Amino acid sequence: MYRTHTCGELRSEHINQTVTLSGWVQYNRDFGGMTFIDLRDRFGITQLVFGMDIDNNLCEKARTLGREFVVQVTGKVNERSNKNNNIPTGDIEIIVTELTLLNASKLPPFTIEDDTDGGEELRMKYRYLDLRRRPIRDNLILRHKLGQEVRKYLAGQGFLEIETPFLIKSTPEGARDFVVPSRVHESNFYALPQSPQTFKQILMMSGYDKYFQIVKCFRDEDFRADRQPEFTQVDCEMSFIHQQDIIDVFTGFVKHIFKEVREVELGEIPVLTYADAMNRFGSDKPDMRFGMEIKYLDSQLGDTDFAPFKDALDQKGSIAGICIENGAVFTRKQLDAYTEYVKEPNRGMKGLIYVKWNEDNTISSSVNKFFSEDQLKEWFKTFNGQQGDLLLISSGATRKVQKAIGDLRLEIGSQMGLRDKNKFAALWVVDFPMFAFDEESQTWTFEHHPFTSPKAEHLDKIFTHPGEVLANAYDFVINGWECCSGSIRIHDREIQSKIFKAIGLSEEEAQEKFGFLLGALEYGAPPHGGCAFGFDRLCAIMAGTESIRDVIAFPKNNSGRDIMLDAPGPISQEQWKYLHLKPGS
Amino acid sequence: MYRTHTCGELRSEHINQTVTLSGWVQYNRDFGGMTFIDLRDRFGITQLVFGMDIDNNLCEKARTLGREFVVQVTGKVNERSNKNNNIPTGDIEIIVTELTLLNASKLPPFTIEDDTDGGEELRMKYRYLDLRRRPIRDNLILRHKLGQEVRKYLAGQGFLEIETPFLIKSTPEGARDFVVPSRVHESNFYALPQSPQTFKQILMMSGYDKYFQIVKCFRDEDFRADRQPEFTQVDCEMSFIHQQDIIDVFTGFVKHIFKEVREVELGEIPVLTYADAMNRFGSDKPDMRFGMEIKYLDSQLGDTDFAPFKDALDQKGSIAGICIENGAVFTRKQLDAYTEYVKEPNRGMKGLIYVKWNEDNTISSSVNKFFSEDQLKEWFKTFNGQQGDLLLISSGATRKVQKAIGDLRLEIGSQMGLRDKNKFAALWVVDFPMFAFDEESQTWTFEHHPFTSPKAEHLDKIFTHPGEVLANAYDFVINGWECCSGSIRIHDREIQSKIFKAIGLSEEEAQEKFGFLLGALEYGAPPHGGCAFGFDRLCAIMAGTESIRDVIAFPKNNSGRDIMLDAPGPISQEQWKYLHLKPGS
Repeated sequence: MYRTHTCGELRSEHINQTVTLSGWVQYNRDFGGMTFIDLRDRFGITQLVFGMDIDNNLCEKARTLGREFVVQVTGKVNERSNKNNNIPTGDIEIIVTELTLLNASKLPPFTIEDDTDGGEELRMKYRYLDLRRRPIRDNLILRHKLGQEVRKYLAGQGFLEIETPFLIKSTPEGARDFVVPSRVHESNFYALPQSPQTFKQILMMSGYDKYFQIVKCFRDEDFRADRQPEFTQVDCEMSFIHQQDIIDVFTGFVKHIFKEVREVELGEIPVLTYADAMNRFGSDKPDMRFGMEIKYLDSQLGDTDFAPFKDALDQKGSIAGICIENGAVFTRKQLDAYTEYVKEPNRGMKGLIYVKWNEDNTISSSVNKFFSEDQLKEWFKTFNGQQGDLLLISSGATRKVQKAIGDLRLEIGSQMGLRDKNKFAALWVVDFPMFAFDEESQTWTFEHHPFTSPKAEHLDKIFTHPGEVLANAYDFVINGWECCSGSIRIHDREIQSKIFKAIGLSEEEAQEKFGFLLGALEYGAPPHGGCAFGFDRLCAIMAGTESIRDVIAFPKNNSGRDIMLDAPGPISQEQWKYLHLKPGS
Repeated sequence: MYRTHTCGELRSEHINQTVTLSGWVQYNRDFGGMTFIDLRDRFGITQLVFGMDIDNNLCEKARTLGREFVVQVTGKVNERSNKNNNIPTGDIEIIVTELTLLNASKLPPFTIEDDTDGGEELRMKYRYLDLRRRPIRDNLILRHKLGQEVRKYLAGQGFLEIETPFLIKSTPEGARDFVVPSRVHESNFYALPQSPQTFKQILMMSGYDKYFQIVKCFRDEDFRADRQPEFTQVDCEMSFIHQQDIIDVFTGFVKHIFKEVREVELGEIPVLTYADAMNRFGSDKPDMRFGMEIKYLDSQLGDTDFAPFKDALDQKGSIAGICIENGAVFTRKQLDAYTEYVKEPNRGMKGLIYVKWNEDNTISSSVNKFFSEDQLKEWFKTFNGQQGDLLLISSGATRKVQKAIGDLRLEIGSQMGLRDKNKFAALWVVDFPMFAFDEESQTWTFEHHPFTSPKAEHLDKIFTHPGEVLANAYDFVINGWECCSGSIRIHDREIQSKIFKAIGLSEEEAQEKFGFLLGALEYGAPPHGGCAFGFDRLCAIMAGTESIRDVIAFPKNNSGRDIMLDAPGPISQEQWKYLHLKPGS
């Protein structure tokens, strides 16, 4: 037996017991007559004591133990004279009488502590050492707990966990598939699933009623910061439901997991339409941890001559801005930086106007040549602003100015510390547009995926006014992250055909790609819908980290490489041959 | 709201309530004035009643509903005059007052009933209809429950569920890898994991102490009956343990899951050595649901002149057989068939000897010219046989004759109904050989995998007597199926090098293939070990089915195709191009 207890288990009630522990040497401090070792395992740290006066040889042996050596010790639990209140085992120590070296360790290339001196690349290469660090371990333990609670809740609600296949058919749409060459069927490939979307719909058509799965998905996208080629989602689907049923069930779900895993009560979760979210926050995934909502001067300035505003209104655009509480103290330099921020190419504003209501009751503004002090004070009313506040305003095409001001709101919110990672603000966003116009190809494409149902009352606009058609689609958003996306699906073969047609997919192409699903629609498909939560993101939000890499045991880097494994890598000539492949381009 | 209750929920206490149900039409029976419909969902079946005297139009409408139509009905719960005790809702029926057709159905290509008229191929093509059949649904519900109980037990024991990656590095060993071409890294490939073996060992080296995962694995083997290219395993690993600790924990595990999922008490689970299992049952995965153990006449017939026996003993082989209780009545034809059975090429016996102790106390035997009746009766003593029994005996090289007689034992056990699928007999098999001699390449290879530790006391025989080295390896066996395999791993870098050397892997090759693991061994690897359960097989055994395809929602056929999806399939020219591949051979 390697141990009687773990390194996190002993308390004062164990004093005088003889125990055996095994673990890693975290620290080894030699004070001449005494040697103290902090022994670490997953469960905690226990202090070991070796005394020259107790056992000379043993103490000498202990002194030779380096960081990360693995040892087994037996000894008596002793009350510490200097108690350490920072750790749960801080009341006791072990007076060691037996010591066995289980394994030695080379000197690690970086320190294995909460804050390490190792760079990202080095830590990824030696991921097996990085994984020993407490912050990473805590994240993975949280991930484990979250997985258990997800299953507990959904199973409790009658959902069945059903595994869907990984070796499927390539159906190019949206992102690129990863593919797997078949050895047996020459020049044929399997694809790895981008999501189990069609399978979960099939399961509903097969009468499984409520399905879920915590499942790996794969997308061969160009890697961006914080994108992983393989990621995990909590995939769910229900039959005989309306949108509200899904929102109800999964409101219960998120409340449960936040309560059980983080001891956080999410409270009432508001439901916003897509249009409202865009209008009020300039985003379809608003961060609701703080206000600073977008307000509009459109009606108030309907007859303005100020060119940037007039141009915007003439082109049916908007004049929109935010009010920053106590922002009148912001410096010129800050204001210039915000102007540059909204002018960045992805935001494309022409400028940013500021209006300060100073503490001395004066107004200073970049537009004081065009508007009187009284006029500007009127603006503050629209924003519910007051003395000491700052308005930042821009104008242009409505969605564009909303996005720019929405981004600025987040930027300033971050700077002002309004986005506390230990505060959680959730909402549902509903009534998304059904189609999006792709400027590049000048065609309409689906906003969600081609199985999402349009609102029944918009069916007749599919071909005439596709931009006005709303979908039975919804997102769950928390702290500005879209954590879950879903929709009520089409269960009517005719409507499915219409939608394929609307996005320019011929009946033959549709049959080729989704033949099995179209077939299933003809044999009694029930009304159904569902959603999928990004499990990595959910873990990251709960763990309070920005990067999903911090909650994945073996993540890949930004170019999709696993540095520890050195993957991807070459394959043998024999493999090339039996896969019937040659390098080409 | 589509329903107030499911189709499996209503009982006599609901009588007179107005309810709404949704589901599929299982049967539609028209009795002139009355129409009865069995409405089905995942939860059960409820009888709907439509009467011409109640609502003429509604009844006419109901008559038009075909099999598998999806409908919503509202009506009053009524006490049935003819109660049906075969179904939980058999006390009630619904007098329908409202009927909405939610979706029509084409006539299914096979009947959706417990015993269907559809052939395997047709059912796989229309898997979405096959999945509606109760036996398949019950299997998937059992699989769901088993998954939940597996997690509940292991999480309760302090195991952490940690996801390991799917896009890893190809390390050809044993079975062939499935590989995934990289778009970004030209001519490089990821591989899909054959198991998370190296990752779980890394997690132990990273201090995670107890790990598990229910995880998909991939092997590109030539498909045999009941092999799937993707399969699921319950993968486990523990640190600071000996073999007995693993056996203890997972004995608790299997007892828990059989009790919770099947309400079966497994009782004491015996532990047999590999040598004992081979000697007593001619198999390393003995079916212990029945006795009929193999006995040996070697010492008793040490000086025999009977050529087949003498030859076997001269070559240090064995004379082995089984005793079939009440088998004296077996016909000549049966005995001939058994002789042919052991002579089949994969068993390769030269013949099979029978000895019957007839009910009239005479002995009839194929060797009565060579042995006296008294001698033959002596044989029965060795087998603990008696009047009415039959001995079947063969001779040859020991392992070969054991296998042949072991197979025969199973064959006869099946014929005699001794292998009841509702009876469960489990055991652990331990002390497997470390190496196997590969006749084809005339080299020693590993029996389990190259990370398995040899018994410490056999370390010095690795290069001198590899065939005598035993491993710290163990299998869990139930009803003749190996359900779990595991070992104590090597945590010593030196021993790992020795083992690689013993199987002919150079230090460079080892570094190339397992560099990260060898690296991790140098930074304080703890003693560790684990096992993996075949989840599909476990489900199949619990569900009482022979084929794992019956417990997989979307299985592939014997040539690795998904017939419903029509996968694998071709990819586009664009995909070939951006993957830098050409067809070749």
